[in-house]
Amino acid sequence: MSSAAPILLTPGPLTTSARTRQAMLVDWGSWDERFNQLTASVCSQLLAILNGAATHHCVPLQGSGTFAVEAAIGTLVPRNGKVLVLINGAYGKRLAQICEVLGRDFSTFETAEDEPCSAADVDRLLHADPAITHVALIHCETSTGLLNPLPQIAQVVKEHGKRLIVDAMSSFGALPIDAREVPFDALIAASGKCLEGVPGMGFVFAEKHALGAAQGNCHSLALDLFEQHEYMARTGQWRFTPPTHVVAALHEALLQYHEDGGLPARQRRYANNCQVLLDGMAELGLRSFLPAAIQAPIIVTFHAPTDPRYQFKAFYERVKAKGFILYPGKLTEVDTFRVGCIGHVDAAEMRAAVAAIAQALHAMQVLDI
Amino acid sequence: MSSAAPILLTPGPLTTSARTRQAMLVDWGSWDERFNQLTASVCSQLLAILNGAATHHCVPLQGSGTFAVEAAIGTLVPRNGKVLVLINGAYGKRLAQICEVLGRDFSTFETAEDEPCSAADVDRLLHADPAITHVALIHCETSTGLLNPLPQIAQVVKEHGKRLIVDAMSSFGALPIDAREVPFDALIAASGKCLEGVPGMGFVFAEKHALGAAQGNCHSLALDLFEQHEYMARTGQWRFTPPTHVVAALHEALLQYHEDGGLPARQRRYANNCQVLLDGMAELGLRSFLPAAIQAPIIVTFHAPTDPRYQFKAFYERVKAKGFILYPGKLTEVDTFRVGCIGHVDAAEMRAAVAAIAQALHAMQVLDI
Ligand SMILES: Cc1ncc(COP(=O)(O)O)c(C=O)c1O
Ligand SMILES: Cc1ncc(COP(=O)(O)O)c(C=O)c1O
Repeated sequence: MSSAAPILLTPGPLTTSARTRQAMLVDWGSWDERFNQLTASVCSQLLAILNGAATHHCVPLQGSGTFAVEAAIGTLVPRNGKVLVLINGAYGKRLAQICEVLGRDFSTFETAEDEPCSAADVDRLLHADPAITHVALIHCETSTGLLNPLPQIAQVVKEHGKRLIVDAMSSFGALPIDAREVPFDALIAASGKCLEGVPGMGFVFAEKHALGAAQGNCHSLALDLFEQHEYMARTGQWRFTPPTHVVAALHEALLQYHEDGGLPARQRRYANNCQVLLDGMAELGLRSFLPAAIQAPIIVTFHAPTDPRYQFKAFYERVKAKGFILYPGKLTEVDTFRVGCIGHVDAAEMRAAVAAIAQALHAMQVLDI
Repeated sequence: MSSAAPILLTPGPLTTSARTRQAMLVDWGSWDERFNQLTASVCSQLLAILNGAATHHCVPLQGSGTFAVEAAIGTLVPRNGKVLVLINGAYGKRLAQICEVLGRDFSTFETAEDEPCSAADVDRLLHADPAITHVALIHCETSTGLLNPLPQIAQVVKEHGKRLIVDAMSSFGALPIDAREVPFDALIAASGKCLEGVPGMGFVFAEKHALGAAQGNCHSLALDLFEQHEYMARTGQWRFTPPTHVVAALHEALLQYHEDGGLPARQRRYANNCQVLLDGMAELGLRSFLPAAIQAPIIVTFHAPTDPRYQFKAFYERVKAKGFILYPGKLTEVDTFRVGCIGHVDAAEMRAAVAAIAQALHAMQVLDI
């Protein structure tokens, strides 16, 4: 195993299937009809995953996930709008930073990194500040693995007549979100997460009326989702050169997603990966940071061993030498590391990863877990 | 040939080598040391191509080339700056559009689509308007194939104590640009052009002092080159998820670029492609739009045949069926089509493409060329 490419237990980029990578062995002309069909197929498959075809457009965008999040806020929040940003981790903070840089008025509500935001909180906050036009929320806060209660919050936002923007980067495709039941103006994800494509493009599900009214809002030419959609609807092409190979890989990954059984199967596999990981790590004495009730089956944060012989860098290198790439923690106050449950891996790989972790800790003589 | 993937005679995405595409068969962890080394190697190889290591930083950016152009203008032109945009085609117009959307003050100087901007013009314009702080120029205007006189314009801009931003998207790597002789604050290109990588990332060569003074200028979080560079310099990592497979393909493409003989060899091959194309098309009676003196060996614009039996769409489909993908024209006043000279192709492919074009016109009974 150590001679092959290591398995990525990281929340994107992640391990993809050989078939998905092989789809990148062809060069596509970005003006060509066949490539346009590939893009159209990707967008309609993505919309189908959340039952959004009647209500939302899928707008793909070049770049990483953050580009798509910034594009959604810049395009859909009018210049005189005000965003309530719900924060319980690094990606929530980034939403606030985007509002700050873009000059959109905003306020923040922050809970602890192991505490979901509640619908009651949002209700109270919206009552208190009628100037708020939009609420921005992270679905799965990847910096810990925490799941926020999206359906409940979406309901409250709707009751107040406000608009919701959801960063579902690390949950879309694996955790059910139904656009017929969960009202939102924008939901954002990317190619290289639970759909198991390669990184290089994001996409925004934008509510049709909201997008239609968004002309001229955006602070950026490249990130303007109104123009991006308008051009694609008119020509079938991307407005600027698409990452052709990334699109082809995502298309191939989506075919496999459906062949494998779609969202229920993906959710089941990831939930099983997560359980196998939690059980195995518990046997080693490694404690997860989040209680099970708010743990998304996407990525798990573990407390670092307290033993002074533990150092993340050395631990990481030893586990990597056995074929698995872990992720550092992203908490400022608590020393942690993270293990992803997503990607083209199943229970066998999770068990092997736990074994590699056990051997690494043993070799480092880490006793106090 | 018609059963294999067609050859792209388009100015990016273009035809890449099998070796470059095969570099995408591995998944990379974006936090991993080996991937950081890949990125660092790409950046230093790119800087070496224009002898810029002493004076410039190479800042890679996720997204298409336009993202990098917008990032360069947004980051390097202060909010109270004023840009003189030199226009002789669609990409020059896009520079002006970027200034407009970003709210940077600008003026434009437009010449005909077959007329390069001259250094004398720039001298006169800078004398006339002392408020101008930056000049923005397209090196090779890909909408026609026209080459603007970069070294001469750069010299005049420097004599006036002003800053230059160069979009060298379709020329970098194939036409010599020496940062020790041509002064500029930013020069922009992308992975999927003359370096023969796949599309998905751009890069900006930013003059070190100019970039160092650019904190807080940018209108965007994702497109902020100061922050992008600062984070990478500090951590070795990309600030947001990199398009890992695109980076790996570019790394492999750069290795081949050097093995093949670097810039002189690339320039020679493309110049030969261009000459073979021009000669072959002339024999068919097809006239190129630009005079030879201002024709860059990147892409050639041809006048469409005048015969009413000629229709671009049908012509395109017939040539495609023979294995070659052409490009539509991008001129509003004159009916044209374009054929690229760049990518992993040489004289044999260009001759075969001319033969395919001849057969297509013959089959369409196009007689009046
Ligand atoms: C919830 C969430 N939001 C945003 C991002 C940012 O995406 P990217 O790194 O692709 O810009 C991530 C990345 O993992 C994420 O998990
Ligand atoms: C000169 C020039 N500038 C900018 C661009 C825009 O690049 P992209 O389509 O990758 O955004 C191109 C694309 O061909 C170009 O040739």
